[in-house]
Amino acid sequence: MQETRRAILRAIDSGPVSGPDLADRLGISRAAVWKHVEALREDGFEIGSGEDGYRLDSVPEFGGAAVEFGLNAPYTIEYHDTHTSTNERARELATEGAENVVVLADEQTGGRGRLDRRWASPSGGIWLSVLLRPDVPATHAPAFTLAAAVATARAVRAVGGEASIKWPNDVLVGGDKIAGILTEMEGEADRISWLVVGIGLNANVDPPDLPAQRATSLRAVVGDVNRRGVTQSLLEALADLTTDLDEILPAWRELSGTLGRRVRIETADSTVTGEAVDVRFPGALVVETEEGQTEVTTGDCEHLRGTSGTSDSG
Amino acid sequence: MQETRRAILRAIDSGPVSGPDLADRLGISRAAVWKHVEALREDGFEIGSGEDGYRLDSVPEFGGAAVEFGLNAPYTIEYHDTHTSTNERARELATEGAENVVVLADEQTGGRGRLDRRWASPSGGIWLSVLLRPDVPATHAPAFTLAAAVATARAVRAVGGEASIKWPNDVLVGGDKIAGILTEMEGEADRISWLVVGIGLNANVDPPDLPAQRATSLRAVVGDVNRRGVTQSLLEALADLTTDLDEILPAWRELSGTLGRRVRIETADSTVTGEAVDVRFPGALVVETEEGQTEVTTGDCEHLRGTSGTSDSG
Repeated sequence: MQETRRAILRAIDSGPVSGPDLADRLGISRAAVWKHVEALREDGFEIGSGEDGYRLDSVPEFGGAAVEFGLNAPYTIEYHDTHTSTNERARELATEGAENVVVLADEQTGGRGRLDRRWASPSGGIWLSVLLRPDVPATHAPAFTLAAAVATARAVRAVGGEASIKWPNDVLVGGDKIAGILTEMEGEADRISWLVVGIGLNANVDPPDLPAQRATSLRAVVGDVNRRGVTQSLLEALADLTTDLDEILPAWRELSGTLGRRVRIETADSTVTGEAVDVRFPGALVVETEEGQTEVTTGDCEHLRGTSGTSDSG
Repeated sequence: MQETRRAILRAIDSGPVSGPDLADRLGISRAAVWKHVEALREDGFEIGSGEDGYRLDSVPEFGGAAVEFGLNAPYTIEYHDTHTSTNERARELATEGAENVVVLADEQTGGRGRLDRRWASPSGGIWLSVLLRPDVPATHAPAFTLAAAVATARAVRAVGGEASIKWPNDVLVGGDKIAGILTEMEGEADRISWLVVGIGLNANVDPPDLPAQRATSLRAVVGDVNRRGVTQSLLEALADLTTDLDEILPAWRELSGTLGRRVRIETADSTVTGEAVDVRFPGALVVETEEGQTEVTTGDCEHLRGTSGTSDSG
């Protein structure tokens, strides 16, 4: 969103301001004020114009300008009604040198999750990718994935969903997956060049439109939400957590549905079964197995029920 | 190098073969044989043509065709007399979808090491970058850096240099740095999209041309070498080690100059001082400090002498 439009919204949000007044404050012509107000109306902002001047009546439920307006996080938003993949677009922006940009879409036509698995992204969801350039070694990248899970779980809880996190970064409500996260990066051992944190949150969508087994959505759990508010609280939590990486693990433990559970983890070359007892920086799960403690850095985690071996989430 | 030229070299390497014979064997015209032989001569191959036919008299000391000829590793070579940076070129090739390509140069004009530090790369060195797409999680990437150090140290030892490795990947001779390694990657937690292992080996160059403190070269240590042979043994060792990652750590320990030493490691946010006691997969150094054992995943390592605190290598 243009800086001028942001300034107009801020000005008229707290009460009516006349056109000449706005022109004065912003140092632009009255005709320019009118043009910007029209553009904002086209973006879905309801702007009343009475005797006292312009007044912000309502902000759209979603969109780039809506999410940027009032956002307390250092990100600019690039919004698409539909895009193949927000992660793909964020990687493009990375090669162009951008940073602190959020690519946001109402619908993805080629969304994907870990290991190229398809990620259904119908219209009504919150599909976003955050492009960051954190000044940390590449080995710390997994911490950003945990931070994204915490930020998403907090945003779900803020609207009443009982979210918990399945290691490392699936956000579940009642054992069903409500959000998935895919982090991609480029860098060398001592330094991350760019990091793209992709988050897919099933918001105002119907579970039958999500082909994955055991998927749910905010609509199914708490009813339709204001996606602007959910997206803002998610991004604000992410910005907070990634400012001080030491905050991530305690926050993750608090929301974890994995710690204290029996788990089975399929890694690239083995299966680890035991009790998940802790998470270690930057993101390894500590599992107490029959042979002793072991740390798992990546893999597919399944929550087991007691010792019967029936699975609780996949 | 073209497959046909490779076939011609193989054929005439073991004895003279007549033009018509070569044309027959390769299914091409005699004129084509002659053209390929001329091209090889331009690349520096000495090919005699006597009564019995063509005969390979000598292979050039360096270059793409020379290194590819007889190479027992699954890499193709892209050679440049001079290039800004072989890592930069390998990253370009990565975005084009290539793999198992080695970018090799006699000189780099903008070579760089870790953290954007300048890496002097005058003509006469072995400056190369290997583009791989290993099917392993991103967390395993540091193992490839250790493998590159082992492969380089072995290649230096094969020509008589007493190489050892300073954690994680500096190759030293007599405490001076003879090679440096810079690994870059792109990927997600569970998967590496591409990995570029850059190796700069100071071969037939004069130490005064290497502005880094305490740098040395093969020329200074053992005299000028045949760079084709050194490059081939380096690449063959790297291909072997990266086929089975379990081989890397034992090989690294054997060549390590760090284990058993007092070290001081500057990490991003602290300094660790103590005795280096082991290396753990994928590449962390285990240090015995006064407060107990700690694992360091990345940082600048300095070898200390006894307890006096004088440094042995920087």
